[in-house]
Amino acid sequence: MHVIIDGYDGDPDRLASEDTVRVLLERCPEAMDMTKIMPPFVVRYQGSKPEDWGISGFVMIAESHISIHTFPERGLLWADAFSCKGFDFAPIVEELRASFGLRDVQSQVLERGLEYPTLPGRTLEAPAHR
Amino acid sequence: MHVIIDGYDGDPDRLASEDTVRVLLERCPEAMDMTKIMPPFVVRYQGSKPEDWGISGFVMIAESHISIHTFPERGLLWADAFSCKGFDFAPIVEELRASFGLRDVQSQVLERGLEYPTLPGRTLEAPAHR
Repeated sequence: MHVIIDGYDGDPDRLASEDTVRVLLERCPEAMDMTKIMPPFVVRYQGSKPEDWGISGFVMIAESHISIHTFPERGLLWADAFSCKGFDFAPIVEELRASFGLRDVQSQVLERGLEYPTLPGRTLEAPAHR
Repeated sequence: MHVIIDGYDGDPDRLASEDTVRVLLERCPEAMDMTKIMPPFVVRYQGSKPEDWGISGFVMIAESHISIHTFPERGLLWADAFSCKGFDFAPIVEELRASFGLRDVQSQVLERGLEYPTLPGRTLEAPAHR
């Protein structure tokens, strides 16, 4: 399961804060009832255009991860949460909204299979569980 | 731009190799003509079911990232490559295919906007470039 989250109209100061991103990445695995296997990695980046700068953060959670990239001058952030297992992503959306003062958050869920997609004429082994 | 890549029928030994994942994550940013801002982070994980184990890896590239999670006992991997800018992802697919002996690789591209989606009755500021 892979959840893609776009947040808009956030607080530029909080979007520019490495600490805010780090605290969020510390909290989210617990909110997902998962255990992180590294401390969050957080860095300030400068993109190719002067207004494209912000904070990039990442945390690894066994076969899962959460990433965030913020754009303070645009008031937005992009995040994604990926896991081998299904999970409730509402807590992550709420943590993001509250942490960065986002006025709108849009999410989309991508299902990703643990088995090879069935193709006509192709013999599959016993289906893997999901 | 966010590219989601699912690879199937790979070589279990290579999918189980931390070194193979690390070398791939070292190479891909160059293949994308991007500069990494941290060494790849690679770890062996054990999921909640005995057969769900493998290698998780991640590299941060300014406002971009690449992640990989492998499942040697299923012969598969999940990867994603995210960037603020558009990029040619064909080299990444080829690196994945060659590194892990994948017989099939499926990719999907998600476009992610740098501007707030236009809503009826909402006044937008000058549109941001993409």
